[in-house]
Amino acid sequence: MGNTVQRGFLDEEFENRTLRCQTMMAECGLDALWVCTEPEVRYFTGFHTPFWQSPTRPWFVVVPSSGKPIAVIPSIGASSMSSTWIDDVRTWPAPQPLDDGVTLLIDCLREVAGQQGRIGLPMGPETHVRMPLNDYEKVCSTFGGFVDSTEIIRSLRMVKSEAEISKHQHICSIVSDAFDALPEILNTGMTERQAFATFRSEILTQGADDVPYLVGATGPGGINDIIRQPSDRIINDGDLLIFDTGSTFDGYFSDFDRNFAFTSATQDAKDAYRAVWEATEAGLETVKPGATTTQIFNTMNEVLIKNGSLGNDVGRMGHGLGMQVTEWPSHTVEDETLVVENMVLTLEPGLQWASGKVMVHEENLVVRADGAELLSRRAAPDLPII
Amino acid sequence: MGNTVQRGFLDEEFENRTLRCQTMMAECGLDALWVCTEPEVRYFTGFHTPFWQSPTRPWFVVVPSSGKPIAVIPSIGASSMSSTWIDDVRTWPAPQPLDDGVTLLIDCLREVAGQQGRIGLPMGPETHVRMPLNDYEKVCSTFGGFVDSTEIIRSLRMVKSEAEISKHQHICSIVSDAFDALPEILNTGMTERQAFATFRSEILTQGADDVPYLVGATGPGGINDIIRQPSDRIINDGDLLIFDTGSTFDGYFSDFDRNFAFTSATQDAKDAYRAVWEATEAGLETVKPGATTTQIFNTMNEVLIKNGSLGNDVGRMGHGLGMQVTEWPSHTVEDETLVVENMVLTLEPGLQWASGKVMVHEENLVVRADGAELLSRRAAPDLPII
Repeated sequence: MGNTVQRGFLDEEFENRTLRCQTMMAECGLDALWVCTEPEVRYFTGFHTPFWQSPTRPWFVVVPSSGKPIAVIPSIGASSMSSTWIDDVRTWPAPQPLDDGVTLLIDCLREVAGQQGRIGLPMGPETHVRMPLNDYEKVCSTFGGFVDSTEIIRSLRMVKSEAEISKHQHICSIVSDAFDALPEILNTGMTERQAFATFRSEILTQGADDVPYLVGATGPGGINDIIRQPSDRIINDGDLLIFDTGSTFDGYFSDFDRNFAFTSATQDAKDAYRAVWEATEAGLETVKPGATTTQIFNTMNEVLIKNGSLGNDVGRMGHGLGMQVTEWPSHTVEDETLVVENMVLTLEPGLQWASGKVMVHEENLVVRADGAELLSRRAAPDLPII
Repeated sequence: MGNTVQRGFLDEEFENRTLRCQTMMAECGLDALWVCTEPEVRYFTGFHTPFWQSPTRPWFVVVPSSGKPIAVIPSIGASSMSSTWIDDVRTWPAPQPLDDGVTLLIDCLREVAGQQGRIGLPMGPETHVRMPLNDYEKVCSTFGGFVDSTEIIRSLRMVKSEAEISKHQHICSIVSDAFDALPEILNTGMTERQAFATFRSEILTQGADDVPYLVGATGPGGINDIIRQPSDRIINDGDLLIFDTGSTFDGYFSDFDRNFAFTSATQDAKDAYRAVWEATEAGLETVKPGATTTQIFNTMNEVLIKNGSLGNDVGRMGHGLGMQVTEWPSHTVEDETLVVENMVLTLEPGLQWASGKVMVHEENLVVRADGAELLSRRAAPDLPII
């Protein structure tokens, strides 16, 4: 369990990421690029810790136009960061609210880019600046502003290396096994909370490092919400159940769901299940290098409309997958992102099939030269009944 | 397990939070206050979902000068948010990168505060703005800026209600039981990774909802890093082990650690353990309403210096605890926060006792009228040997 897949990465992985970044930086005329969010810091350094859950301290990485990235971080991370491929680790004894890395970051950016340099920072969709706004404004005013570099980070992270893909394969296989075990370990009479705990435990037993994302719901004949936390509701005959989990291996996510009925299901529920399954089939056929996320959306949406969809609230029908449970791009009617080899994507068609009743399917895949290669084990074509 | 402690909160909890907030808003002359981070949105609404791990969509709550808060959120959250005490739930079909809630948020703020109103936003230590910077700047320029309201949010969240404290008591009791079980379930010959998985499983079995934060390390005669992820290193006779976990019950954290030696320990390691234990004792004596976080720091630091501390990299000796694994305040030499009743705090003295060898203790407590009431079960005064 986990022993067959390499943990961590060779230094070449980080060298390649940095070189690809620096090539794009040169095209944009950037002298430096800085990042301050967990996936970006990890992407360039390999620094991997749940310590980011503490909001107290900001962390920075500066990518120069050539050479290795520079870490500007709280001293509590010095030992871990020094064990990565990064050579230049600059620290301060955070927390220090009056100057929490601000001077150290400004000095580093000035050294790398010069006072008049063009400095990139991701500011667009799906990004945020993880430091106090007051401190950000000090850094910003020192340099008179930054250049939005969302597109650089987005295009880097959307396309995975084989080493990253192998981690996705591993966690998707683990979660597929855990879903397959559900009919044996769930039954009516359990509460939702017991069912959640049982599933979480099964995923961990199968070899996942963690289950950071687990949502779901049960309801008589159908469910009305796909991002809920469990309640003490007791599962009854005739209930539908959805579980959707983002589990991790070595910091890479799976993200797919499964639906089950207990004892029996109505024909309408079975038809709704079949509709999202067929929509996924259509999506899988569409995914290939050269297609767009909008084509993927439209293909799946046509199947849902043909099957009487009353719409859905999710806002998209799948997305990128990686170090976060959702990443760029989004399969929407306007997204128009070009699909390229080695993207890791989800397909997530959903529909409202009756008032207050929704059905959502999800599969994970990697884009290969000849089309979609499934990472999750394909859901059964008909609603499984426990 | 978990059945004795109420999940969720009565509506009065949210009414009280909102009224306390509005009283402070009035003192600052604020017409509205908006927040966009998970703990703040949950604080005012009760909306609780791991969906925040997806970086795709921003979420907003606007607190008016009187009346209930208003939720401005993606439509995927409409059903869950509508089941909270909030009445006014405004949604848009996110993701919609060209206008991801920006117009809806601006309209709401304008309606509540007027175009010339004074609008608060947390911008200070331990806060960040969780939305794309480009979008934030559109909102900001519409109103000509916001008033930093960190102090309002900080003083609200630092002082817990009895209902919140009961959740802390419950999770700290669960994790204490799991730590107590460790000598029976860990042994030399295991890898660090196996030891982590065993401990995580034990915490969940004891009744925790999740283990979002688990770090630790082993090393021959001592450890050099307290925020590491596990490796395949095999635990040997003479190793020291530290586990530090932030586990949750109903969205409230524990955060404490324990140290163990396998088979034997050097006198220096035993002395270092005793030093941090004694420092914690001194801290527990100091904690009471009217003391300051700086006094708590100084009291513990004196004990460590007397015992030959070579310093530490943590930057503080404990912090607030709540919906996040660390919250305001920090026990530092400069923090000077006044300790008041019903604060939930950690004490976390740490020292470097030899080159590359650190020792950190941590306990959790609630401040009562007459001093500290422990939430974690007090660590043994002498280094436990497995």
